[in-house]
Formats: sequence, C-alpha cells, structure tokens
Amino acid sequence: MKKILIIGIGAGNPEYVTIQAVNALNQVDVFFMMDKGPDKAKLNAFRKEICNRYIEGSDYRFVDADSPAWQRQPLDYAATIDGLNRDKRLVFERLIAEEMRDGECAGFLVWGDPTLYDSTIRIVEAIAKTGAHRIDYEVIPGISSIQALAARHKTTLNRIGQSIEVTTGRRLAEGFPNNVDSVVVMLDANDTYTRFADRDIDIYWGAYVGTEDEILVAGKLKEVVDEIERVRREARQRHGWIMDTYLLRKGVSGESDD
Amino acid sequence: MKKILIIGIGAGNPEYVTIQAVNALNQVDVFFMMDKGPDKAKLNAFRKEICNRYIEGSDYRFVDADSPAWQRQPLDYAATIDGLNRDKRLVFERLIAEEMRDGECAGFLVWGDPTLYDSTIRIVEAIAKTGAHRIDYEVIPGISSIQALAARHKTTLNRIGQSIEVTTGRRLAEGFPNNVDSVVVMLDANDTYTRFADRDIDIYWGAYVGTEDEILVAGKLKEVVDEIERVRREARQRHGWIMDTYLLRKGVSGESDD
Repeated sequence: MKKILIIGIGAGNPEYVTIQAVNALNQVDVFFMMDKGPDKAKLNAFRKEICNRYIEGSDYRFVDADSPAWQRQPLDYAATIDGLNRDKRLVFERLIAEEMRDGECAGFLVWGDPTLYDSTIRIVEAIAKTGAHRIDYEVIPGISSIQALAARHKTTLNRIGQSIEVTTGRRLAEGFPNNVDSVVVMLDANDTYTRFADRDIDIYWGAYVGTEDEILVAGKLKEVVDEIERVRREARQRHGWIMDTYLLRKGVSGESDD
Repeated sequence: MKKILIIGIGAGNPEYVTIQAVNALNQVDVFFMMDKGPDKAKLNAFRKEICNRYIEGSDYRFVDADSPAWQRQPLDYAATIDGLNRDKRLVFERLIAEEMRDGECAGFLVWGDPTLYDSTIRIVEAIAKTGAHRIDYEVIPGISSIQALAARHKTTLNRIGQSIEVTTGRRLAEGFPNNVDSVVVMLDANDTYTRFADRDIDIYWGAYVGTEDEILVAGKLKEVVDEIERVRREARQRHGWIMDTYLLRKGVSGESDD
C-alpha cells in the first residue's frame, strides 16, 4: 500500500499551516512538486520553507515533476483543463509507480485549500478508482486565499443571512450574479471587476495576501477601480506574476437588508 | 490601548488550529466566551481544550458572558439577527470596558472561520468605529466547516472552472440557485435538501465533522435522502444538538462539462 496526503498549506503566510498539516508533513517520505509557470520558483521555495520550518529531522525528499504546459486563454476552458488533467494524471501515475516504494507516504503540498479550485483531489481520486495502484489517500484542509483576503481586510465574506458566490473571472465576465450580494472572485487574469465600476459595489481586493508582498485595497469600486488596475499592473510587472483575489459586495443601497 | 483577537479555531478537529492561531492564543490575557443554547457546554469545553492544548503556561482567564437569548424561527430573520447583534454589542462593550485592563489582549475563539456566518467581526468593527473604546483588533482565519466537510469526503467544493454558492437552509428553501452547480448549505435546521430529492443531485452530508462523533453520508440525493433524514434526527436526539453542513452538486447529466 502507498499512502498519499493532499495537504493544504494555506495561502501566503507560513503560519496559516494547521497542526493537522504539520503532523501530516512529518509523515511524508517524498514530496511531489508539480508547479509550472512564472510563479513556480516562488511557490516551490515556499513549499520548501514550510517543510524546513515544520518537519523534524530531514528524512524526506522532493521530486520535481515537470507539470504539463497549457494555454493561458484557451477557447474551450473545460476541455483544456480536462486535457491538462489527463496529462497531469499520467505524470502523477508515473510518480506513484516510480518515485515511491510500497509502504511509503507521498505528499502533495497544495497552495491554499485543496478543496477549492485545485485538481489534485480529482486526479488522485481518478487514479485510485482505476485500482491499478494500491493507494490510500487523505485530504488535509488549508486556509484558502478567500479566507486570508477577508481576514486581512477584517471583514466577513457574507452579509447577515445572505449567500456568497465563489467564482472565477471567466464566469464573472458573463455578468454579476443576480441572486447573491457577495461574490468572491478567484483566477481573474483580466481585471473583470472593471466591468462593474458604474454600479454601487464595494470591493475588497488583495494580492499576495498573507505574504510580505501583500497589497490590500478596499472601497467603493467606482472610487478605487483605477487604483486597483494600476497597482495590479505594476505589481505583476515587478514580481513577474500575480496572485490576487477579491470580494465584491453590493453597496449601501442593499444595506437595509444587512 | 486594548487589543482584541478574533481567532478562528477551526470546525471540529482540534488539529485544524493554525500556527497563527496558536501564536495568537498565547498572546491572550482573557478569553470571552459567548455561547448559548444546547451546544454551549460542548463548545466551551472545546475552546478550553484548545487553550489547554496550545497555550504554554496558564497565564490566562475566561470570562463567561451570558449571550442574549434569541428565537429559533424568527419571522423576520435579518431584523432578529440585527436586534441580537445590538444586544451582543452591549455585552461586548461591557466586557471590553469592565473585564480587561488597558494594555491587555482579549480573545474571541470563533468556531470554524470568523469570516463565514459569524457576527464577531461585524460587532467588534462597530464598536471600534464608535471610538468610545481605544481598541485595535485582528482577525485570524480558521478552517471552516465547509472545508472540513469537503476534505473528509475527499472531494472538491467546485467543479472544474465552475462556481459555488455558499448559502443557508433558509435561502435554499427559496429554490435551487439556477446559475451554479455546487451549493454548500450551512445553518439548515429544516432538512431543506429533502425538497430536491426528485432531481439529479449528489449530496455530501456531514454532522459533527472532524470530531469523534463525525457522521458522513454521500451519494445520489434520491437514494440517500431518507438515510440522512433518519441519521440526522437520531443524532440530534442523542446529542441534544446537531451541527451539520452539506454540499449539493448537480448530477451526472451535467458531468460532461466537468
């Protein structure tokens, strides 16, 4: 039997790691590193820092797998991700077959929370279902970038008794959801919030939240939209990559049902 | 200056506590305990166990504030919560004025994540805004019951590239949201999932998730709906209270866009 731990390590601050994750880290023999793209070096350095900080001893190893490349603006998003995940799955299967011995424990260190906008669970589940490898796996939740964003802005994600939609920039571009007043947007490469700048909406925006590079901007969207766009562009140039998230909340006119 | 730390302690498993929360716990002089209702004893015992487990030394105290009582099925939910929060705010202000000295640090230990369906941030912010008390506050995120649920079911909250709605039983009773395929339901006292048993929906249900009393049921809603209703009723009778959450996901007919 081979054991796989899918460990959420939180989004940004090394102190977001849970005690459960620390205990899980200490069980792992081999960490599979799957990142790609301009943030790869930064993310891998973060993962190594987490291991170094929280694992007692040094009885573990890293295997750096080249993650399949993919198009940034694919025409058919779901099909592309689907294909990407098939490729990833082949990589995972090779890692499981060749890079860990029977009885060993492997770890995937997932940025934020593995249950939110991350494919690791889905891929490992698919591999487990085939029965071709004798694997057992567990999921350890982590602090997501959404929670880090709200905590750093000292605000709640929901209005009292109201709903929240968690979505992507791609889906937000189809229109502001009409049945919720709070929308959390992840994975937005296209400044989609700018489309709603004429509405009465508050925005809580953050980049590199929880890290030493953290930038936070909040306010009436129409008043801060230009600032966010500028700050975001400058930060992406400076760092070579950006990881940002934001909460949009319908403004004061809806305050009466708060 | 008085410092207030709003600390998310995770939902259920004492190991969900983050390193950041552990460090915060160790700064606190006085913990304000606000619970009420049938789960009060259990929740307070959990908080005390967290403190006992993670705080070095015993240089801290608890103040047990009687939290205002409130109706379980109010006619006007928002107004009732509003009134409840006004009462709570008076209690908080008294605690801050009378139960902590200048230069001390107070802690609120919030079940799950303070940014999700919890009023502590909102109330402390309102008090801080009045300027009547010289307070500074911080929010420490925690693992929410939503994340615990998904992790224990080893599933993701979202389908690939799709949105998630986080909502309450009360709002779900108004109808299944038409623009998302994954709905996470909190605070449902009325088995609202039963209304959708004729549809092609998967459910991932859990009660007391992360604790030794954890119960998990997953499957096609129409096949497990009776089991969940029965298990839920029995568990509530046995424990005197229940804390459950569930994820509804539109079924295989939508599988093609996964």
